[in-house]
Amino acid sequence: MKTVSAAKHIVQGNTCLLNSIEQPVATAAGYVLSAAVYSKVSVPGFPQSSMDGYALRVQDSGALLPVQDELPAGSSRQLQLKAEQAIRVFTGGPVPEGADTVVQKEWVTLTASGIRIQEPERVEAGANIRMPGADIQAGDQVIPEGTLVHPYLVSYLAGVGATTVAVYRRPVVSLVITGNELVQPGNPLEYGQVYESNSFGLTAALQQAGVDQVQQWRAKDELAATEQAIAAALKGADVLLLTGGVSVGEYDYVVQACLNQGVELLFHGVKQRPGKPLFFGRKGQQLVFGLPGNPASVLSCYQQYVLPALHQMTGRKMPAPQMAKLLHAYEKKGVLTVFLKGYYENGMVTVLPAQASFQLSAFTTANCWIELDETISFFAASQQVPVHLF
Amino acid sequence: MKTVSAAKHIVQGNTCLLNSIEQPVATAAGYVLSAAVYSKVSVPGFPQSSMDGYALRVQDSGALLPVQDELPAGSSRQLQLKAEQAIRVFTGGPVPEGADTVVQKEWVTLTASGIRIQEPERVEAGANIRMPGADIQAGDQVIPEGTLVHPYLVSYLAGVGATTVAVYRRPVVSLVITGNELVQPGNPLEYGQVYESNSFGLTAALQQAGVDQVQQWRAKDELAATEQAIAAALKGADVLLLTGGVSVGEYDYVVQACLNQGVELLFHGVKQRPGKPLFFGRKGQQLVFGLPGNPASVLSCYQQYVLPALHQMTGRKMPAPQMAKLLHAYEKKGVLTVFLKGYYENGMVTVLPAQASFQLSAFTTANCWIELDETISFFAASQQVPVHLF
Repeated sequence: MKTVSAAKHIVQGNTCLLNSIEQPVATAAGYVLSAAVYSKVSVPGFPQSSMDGYALRVQDSGALLPVQDELPAGSSRQLQLKAEQAIRVFTGGPVPEGADTVVQKEWVTLTASGIRIQEPERVEAGANIRMPGADIQAGDQVIPEGTLVHPYLVSYLAGVGATTVAVYRRPVVSLVITGNELVQPGNPLEYGQVYESNSFGLTAALQQAGVDQVQQWRAKDELAATEQAIAAALKGADVLLLTGGVSVGEYDYVVQACLNQGVELLFHGVKQRPGKPLFFGRKGQQLVFGLPGNPASVLSCYQQYVLPALHQMTGRKMPAPQMAKLLHAYEKKGVLTVFLKGYYENGMVTVLPAQASFQLSAFTTANCWIELDETISFFAASQQVPVHLF
Repeated sequence: MKTVSAAKHIVQGNTCLLNSIEQPVATAAGYVLSAAVYSKVSVPGFPQSSMDGYALRVQDSGALLPVQDELPAGSSRQLQLKAEQAIRVFTGGPVPEGADTVVQKEWVTLTASGIRIQEPERVEAGANIRMPGADIQAGDQVIPEGTLVHPYLVSYLAGVGATTVAVYRRPVVSLVITGNELVQPGNPLEYGQVYESNSFGLTAALQQAGVDQVQQWRAKDELAATEQAIAAALKGADVLLLTGGVSVGEYDYVVQACLNQGVELLFHGVKQRPGKPLFFGRKGQQLVFGLPGNPASVLSCYQQYVLPALHQMTGRKMPAPQMAKLLHAYEKKGVLTVFLKGYYENGMVTVLPAQASFQLSAFTTANCWIELDETISFFAASQQVPVHLF
C-alpha cells in the first residue's frame, strides 16, 4: 500500500502532456499555449489619437488655427498637416503627419475662422498621441508558451490579429460505472438498490475542468462485462475512470479486468480515507484510475489524483493546497491520511459533520478537503492543516 | 458624473433575479437553486453493509457459524438471518434482518462447516452497518434555496434521486460592437484600422461566467445603423453590452441611439480610469451597458459592473475584493478611482507596466485589478488596497 505522497508521485511520473492543436482564438480560453505567440502587427499600427480633439504642431498652439480637415476613427487617409493649421481627430483615429500633439476638444474654442487653444502653455509635445508600436511591435513575442489563456488574454490575442493559437488539447475521458446495486435516477428504487450518482458528479467536475468529451459505460459486477466495457472505454480515451469494484472481494472484477485488457498496474491501495482501494495503471499513454465506489471516495480521489493529472496533461498548474487553521481540535483513528469535508473561510477551516464515505450531505456547505497527515492522530485547535479548495 | 460606489449601487438596484427554470441535474453545476431540494428517498434506503464480511448477531460471535446464504450488492432479497448462523454480505449491499453487526472478512476464519471470528470480543453491535436514513431521511431538505450547485453537489442530487432542479436561468446577452476603425482578425489592416478584440474578450469572459447565449451585432458609427443594431440586439436579450461610441463626440451615437430605442438612462460617466464614459440604462428589466471602446476599459467595466449584475441575476454572490499589500509606492493623478492591472500573490500585489486603456500586454501576467481610491493620490509601499481577482 502506497502513502498519499508516493501515490501522487507515481501518477505524476506517468502523466504526459497531450499533443498540441490549433485552436480558434474565440474559444481558446482555458487552454494553455503550447507555443509562444508573436504579433504580426504593431499596436497601434499608426499614430493614434487617444482623445477627441485637434492635431497640430506645439509651436503653433498660440495662434488661431484654421481647421484643415478631419480624420474620424477608421479613416485610412494619410493626411499631411499644414503649418499653422489644425486637423480634427477622434479617439482611436489616426493623427496626421506633421502634427506633434493632440489638444482635447474641451481645451479649445471653436470660431468661424478656426480654433483657439485656451491655455497654450499647457500643450505638450506627444500628448494624447499613441505612437506606433507603443504597446506592441510587430514581431514581438506577446504571450509566452505555457500561459493559461484567460478570457482577457483572448482580447489581447484578437487585438494582435491572431486567429488561432497552438494549445495543448483537452483529454478525452471515459467512465466505466460498475455496481449491480445502481439504478438511474428517475426510476423507483427496490430494496437493496441505490441511485447511481458517480457518473453525474464526475461528468460535472470534468466539465468544470474543461473536459468536454466524456464517454460513459455501465458494467454489471461480472468479469466479462467489466472487461468488455473497459475495452470499449479505452478506445480513443486519454483517461479511463472506473468507479466501484476495486476492492479485493468476490464481486470486485475491476483490477482483474484491467489487467486482462493490458493495463499495467502501477499501484493498488493508498494509505488514505476515503479512497483506500484506489487503483492506478496505464496502457501506453492512457491513464487508468480505479476509484472506489462510495461517492465521497470518488470525489476525494478525483480531486487528489485525477484532477492534477488532467491539469498536467493540458499544461496547467495545479494550485498548491492552502494552509488553514483548524477551528477546533480533531482526533483521528488509524495511520492513514484522512481527507475530511471542510468549510474554509478567512484562513480558518471547520470539519463538517457526515464524514462517512457514503455520505454526501456535507457537500451542501463544504468547499474544501482538509488533509490530515497520516503520522499525526491529534490535531489541536488552531493547528495549521493543508486544505484543497474545490 | 457618478462615483464608482454610487454607480455600482445604481446597477445593483436596477438588477432583478431572472426567472426560474427546471434544469436536468446532470447539467445543473454552476446554477443557483431557486427552490430547496427535498429527498424522495432515505439514504441508504435499507440496512447497508460498509464492508465485505459476514452479518450475524453479536451474541453469536463466539460460536462456529454456518454460512446460511449470501447477499451481494444489488440483491433485492430480504433475507431473515437464522440464530447462530451468518450471512455473507458485501460493501454497499443489504444486511439481512435479524443481524445486528457485520464482521469484516479479514477478521474471520472460513472452515468447511462455517466461519469462526478470530477475536469475538472485538465485535460491536451496529458495526459496519449503515442504518436506513443515516445520511438522509426521505422528505428531508437536502439543499437549501440559494445554493450554488458545485459539481460535487450534482453527485449528491443524483444520489437522492433528483432528475431536475429548479434554478435561476442564465441571462441571454447581446453585444453591439461599434467603431469604423475595427477590422475582424484574419484580414489585413489598412492604415488607421485596428483589430476588433472586444467581442472576443467579452464572449470568453461571459462564457466563463456561465453565459452560453451570446449574440453579436456590428454597427458603423452612424445613428441609424447603431439604432438598428440596438433594436435587433434587445430582442430576447436580458443584457445588452455596447462597446465604443459612448463618449460625447461627433461620431458617438450610442447614448442617443439607446435613448431613441426607449432605454432609460440611469447614469453616464463614472469618476474612474479606465472607463470614465461608462453608460448604464435599462429598458424594462433589460440592462444596457455602454462600455467605452478601449479594450482595457471594456474589461475593467465588465468586471466591476457587468459581472456583478450577471451574478445578481442568477442568484450568485460576487466575491468581495481581497485586501492586498502594495509591493511598492504608487502615485496617481487626478481625483478618479483608478483600476490598475496587477499581479497578486500571497497577500502582496504589484502594479504592472502598460496601464494605458488601449494596452492589453499586461494581461499576460496580470491576475487582478487593483482599485485605488479616488480620494487618495499617494499610496505607500505596504499600504493595503482592494484587489479584484480575475
